[in-house]
Amino acid sequence: MSIPSGASMNIIIRIQLETNIISLGEIVNVIGDEAGDIIGLDVISSSKTSTVRDITVRVHNNNHGQQVVSAISKLAGVKVVNVSDSTFLLHLGGKIEMKPKVRIKNRDDLSRVYTPGVAAISEAIHADPSKVYSLTMKSNTVAIVTDGTAVLGLGDIGPEAAMPVMEGKAMLFKQLANVDAFPICLDTKDTEEIIRIVKSISPTFGGINLEDIASPRCFEIEQRLKSELNIPVFHDDQHGTAVAIYAGLLNALKIVQKNVKDIKVVINGIGAAGIACTKILLAAGAKNVIGVDRNGAIYRGGSYSNPHWQAYAEMTNPENLQGSLSDVIGEADVFIGVSAPGTLKVEDVQKMATDAIVFAMANPVPEIDPDLASPHVRVMATGRSDYPNQINNVLCFPGIFRGALDCRASEINEAMKLAAAEAIASTVSDEELSESYIIPSVFNNKVVDKIRDAVVKAAVETGVARKIPNSNK
Amino acid sequence: MSIPSGASMNIIIRIQLETNIISLGEIVNVIGDEAGDIIGLDVISSSKTSTVRDITVRVHNNNHGQQVVSAISKLAGVKVVNVSDSTFLLHLGGKIEMKPKVRIKNRDDLSRVYTPGVAAISEAIHADPSKVYSLTMKSNTVAIVTDGTAVLGLGDIGPEAAMPVMEGKAMLFKQLANVDAFPICLDTKDTEEIIRIVKSISPTFGGINLEDIASPRCFEIEQRLKSELNIPVFHDDQHGTAVAIYAGLLNALKIVQKNVKDIKVVINGIGAAGIACTKILLAAGAKNVIGVDRNGAIYRGGSYSNPHWQAYAEMTNPENLQGSLSDVIGEADVFIGVSAPGTLKVEDVQKMATDAIVFAMANPVPEIDPDLASPHVRVMATGRSDYPNQINNVLCFPGIFRGALDCRASEINEAMKLAAAEAIASTVSDEELSESYIIPSVFNNKVVDKIRDAVVKAAVETGVARKIPNSNK
Repeated sequence: MSIPSGASMNIIIRIQLETNIISLGEIVNVIGDEAGDIIGLDVISSSKTSTVRDITVRVHNNNHGQQVVSAISKLAGVKVVNVSDSTFLLHLGGKIEMKPKVRIKNRDDLSRVYTPGVAAISEAIHADPSKVYSLTMKSNTVAIVTDGTAVLGLGDIGPEAAMPVMEGKAMLFKQLANVDAFPICLDTKDTEEIIRIVKSISPTFGGINLEDIASPRCFEIEQRLKSELNIPVFHDDQHGTAVAIYAGLLNALKIVQKNVKDIKVVINGIGAAGIACTKILLAAGAKNVIGVDRNGAIYRGGSYSNPHWQAYAEMTNPENLQGSLSDVIGEADVFIGVSAPGTLKVEDVQKMATDAIVFAMANPVPEIDPDLASPHVRVMATGRSDYPNQINNVLCFPGIFRGALDCRASEINEAMKLAAAEAIASTVSDEELSESYIIPSVFNNKVVDKIRDAVVKAAVETGVARKIPNSNK
Repeated sequence: MSIPSGASMNIIIRIQLETNIISLGEIVNVIGDEAGDIIGLDVISSSKTSTVRDITVRVHNNNHGQQVVSAISKLAGVKVVNVSDSTFLLHLGGKIEMKPKVRIKNRDDLSRVYTPGVAAISEAIHADPSKVYSLTMKSNTVAIVTDGTAVLGLGDIGPEAAMPVMEGKAMLFKQLANVDAFPICLDTKDTEEIIRIVKSISPTFGGINLEDIASPRCFEIEQRLKSELNIPVFHDDQHGTAVAIYAGLLNALKIVQKNVKDIKVVINGIGAAGIACTKILLAAGAKNVIGVDRNGAIYRGGSYSNPHWQAYAEMTNPENLQGSLSDVIGEADVFIGVSAPGTLKVEDVQKMATDAIVFAMANPVPEIDPDLASPHVRVMATGRSDYPNQINNVLCFPGIFRGALDCRASEINEAMKLAAAEAIASTVSDEELSESYIIPSVFNNKVVDKIRDAVVKAAVETGVARKIPNSNK
C-alpha cells in the first residue's frame, strides 16, 4: 500500500539484525503488514553474525511511525538502534554554515586576507569608520536576536531550543534575499542586558532582526535599540506580521471595494503583533480600529496594568465601545485575529458587515475554523499553508532587510513598512486577484525585488537612506 | 617593462575620459612611460562624449602606484574617479558569507526547516538540552570575540576596524579545519561586560576564540570564561602563540640535542604571549625560565604594579637573577622574543650558550635582524614569511578547535596544548628536520589532522571530552 506524499513523513529506522535468527525479508514483511512503505534500505555495517541497516519508511504520521517501529522491535533477533524522521535528519549538524568567499591558495593570498596585508584594510576603516560598510561583511549581515522566550507557539523554551528556528530564518534570509543572517540566541531575559548586548555586538552587523522575544519586554527592547543604534532594528513578530496582514488586507479591500479610511476593524489579541497591526492600519489611514483582549474591548477609561494598553486606548476605538468581542464586532468590516484558537464564533461573524473580511492568524489552529466561517465571509485568510490565502511573514523580512541594507537605511520606519505591504499586494495582478488569492506565495520570485525597490524608495523619500543604490541591483 | 610578480602589487585605476579631448592610447603611453604594466582594461560605462574605464596596472609598490596615478591625473580630459589596490578589492563586501546547507525547494521543505516542522526540533532540544549539539550548528561553530583593543600591531583601533582581521581568521578556520567561525566585534572595553556578553551569547557557539584583546584585561576575561562556561575558551594571542613557539622549540632542541628540562630560556616581553609561553614551557618540564620586560628581569622581591608579574616571579627565575636583558642572557640556551623591534643586540647573542636558539617573534620587525644574528646562533626563527622557520599561530587554532569540537571538550587544557605542539613538531620528519626547517608550513595539509587527533586524545585522557569521536573523521 502506497502513501500519498502530501499526507506523510519519512522515518529512518536503524536496526541491528542477528542474521542467524532473522532475515531481512521477515522485517520487510512486517513493515508491509503495518502499511509502511519502504523507500530506502542501506547497510551501515556488517559482521558474520549481525548487520546494521537503515530502513527509510514512508508513514502516515507520527503514530503510524511508532506502530511500525513497535512491530519491528517485537521481533526476535532485531534491535532498533535509533529512529529518525526526515525533519530531524535535515537538522543534523545545523542548517547553515560560514563560507569564505575566496579560497586562500598560497602565501600571497594569505598575506592579503590576513596579516600582514589585512592591516591596511583595518587602518583604512580606523581612519574612516564608514568604510566598514564597503570593506567588511557588515553591509550584508543581520543578527537574528532572540532570548528564546516566545518561540513559535512554544513559549519560553530557552535560547538553545530557539536555535533551529533562527537557523531556519537565516536560511530564508540567504535564499530569498541573499542576506547573511546569523543567530544570536541570548542566555538572559533581562531587558537592559539584552539592549546592552545588542548594542555591544552591533559593529559586526548592518541590521538587527529581533525574534520571538516575549511581550511586553519586546517593545522596550525594540524602541530603545531603534533610538540608540544607527542601523535598522526590526521586530519580526510585530512588524513582519503587521506588514504581511496589511498586504493581504489591501488586496481583500480591493475585492470588496472598500477604502481603509472607512472600514471598522476589530483586532483580537493585543500583544506584540496586535499592536503593530493597529499601528500600520492607523498609519495607512484607518480611523476605526477596535482592539479586544481577554477582558474585552480596550477603551479610554478602562484600567490596564499593561502600560501599552493605556496608550492603545488613546489612539483607537473612537466610539469608545466596551464589552466582549461579541459585543463590539457588530457591523465590523474586518476581523483580524492574532490571538488564540476558537476565540471567534460563527454568530460573531454573522454580526459583521456585508462582504466581511476575516483574517484568523492563530497558528496552527485559527480563531475560527475556515470551513465554518467561509459561508459567512467574502474573504478568509489564515496563517496555514493548507487553506487559501496564507499570510506568512516570510513574505516580508527578506525583502525589507534587502532594501534597508542596500540603501544603508538608519532605520526601518512606518513609510518603509507601508511601502513593503503595498509592494507585496502589488505582486497579485488585477487579473489574478480573487477571494482565494489575495497574497503571493513565499516562492514567488518577484516579491523580494518588489519589496526591496519600494523600501529603498521610501527610505530615500523619508531621509533615512545613507546611500542611493543601483535601481536594478 | 615588466615587473616580477613577487615584488609588485596590482592597482585598479578608474578613469573618466573625455573622448573628444584625449584618446585611450595617450593614457596607455603615459602609464608605460611611468613603467606601469597594464594587465587589464575594462569599459564600465560609455556615452558619446565620455567613457569610464578600469585600468588594472601592476606596479612596484604604493609609491610607484601613486606616481602612475599622478601622471594620469595631470592629463587634460581625464578624471581619476577611484584607485583600488587588489588587497582592497579582495575585501569589498567582506570575505565570508552565511550559506544554507540545503536549498528550500518547496512548501514541504519550508515546513521542515521552518514553522511548523521546526517546532519538533525545538521541543526535542527543550526536553534534552544536550541535543543542541546534534540538531543545530552549535557543535561546529566558534565565536571569534574581540574588543578591537590590540589588533595586530595596530593597537586599539576599535571593533569596526578589527572586523577584517576576524573575517580573515574565520576564512582560515573554515578552509583549514571546516570550523564555522563568526566574528563578534564588541563595542565595549569593560572586562565584566565582555564576560557577561560572551556568556550570554554562548548558547549559539561550541567554542570561544578570544582575539586581540589588550593585556591585562585578556587574562581576567579568559580565566573567568574558562571557569564559568562549559565550552572551550581559547585566547589565541596567548595560547596559539605559545603552542606554535613550543612546537618550533621542540624541533630546534632535537637539532641541538638538548632537553627542555635542562635548558635556560630567556623570554623577552612578559605580556599575554610571554606569560603563555612561559606556562607551556613549565608544563613541558622546563626548570629555568627567566622573564624580562622593559625594566629588566622579573624576580622575587621586585615590586610590580601588574599582579600577573608578581605571580610570574614566583614560578620562574630559580636563581633570582636581576638586571637587564644583557645582564641575564649569559649562557642562555634559548631566547624567545615576544616584544619589540631591535631589543636583542648581537653582543647579547654572543653571550648565549653554544648552539643558541633565537626566536625573534616581533612582527613585522623582529627583536634582532636575522641576518645579523644568524652567524652566532644554531637555529633562528621569526614570525616572518620571508625568512626560514616562520612561527605562525595559523598553524594552531584550526586544528586545536577541530579537535576540541569533535570531542565536545569542556575546555582546552594544558595537556591539549602540549599535545597540539607535539603534533605540529611531529609533522617535520627526522629526514626533513634541519636548522632552516623546524616548523611546517600553514599549507601543509597534515597539520590540522595531526593536531586534531592529538588534541582529542589528550582531552579524553584528561577527562574533558564529552564525546568519543571517530578516530579518522
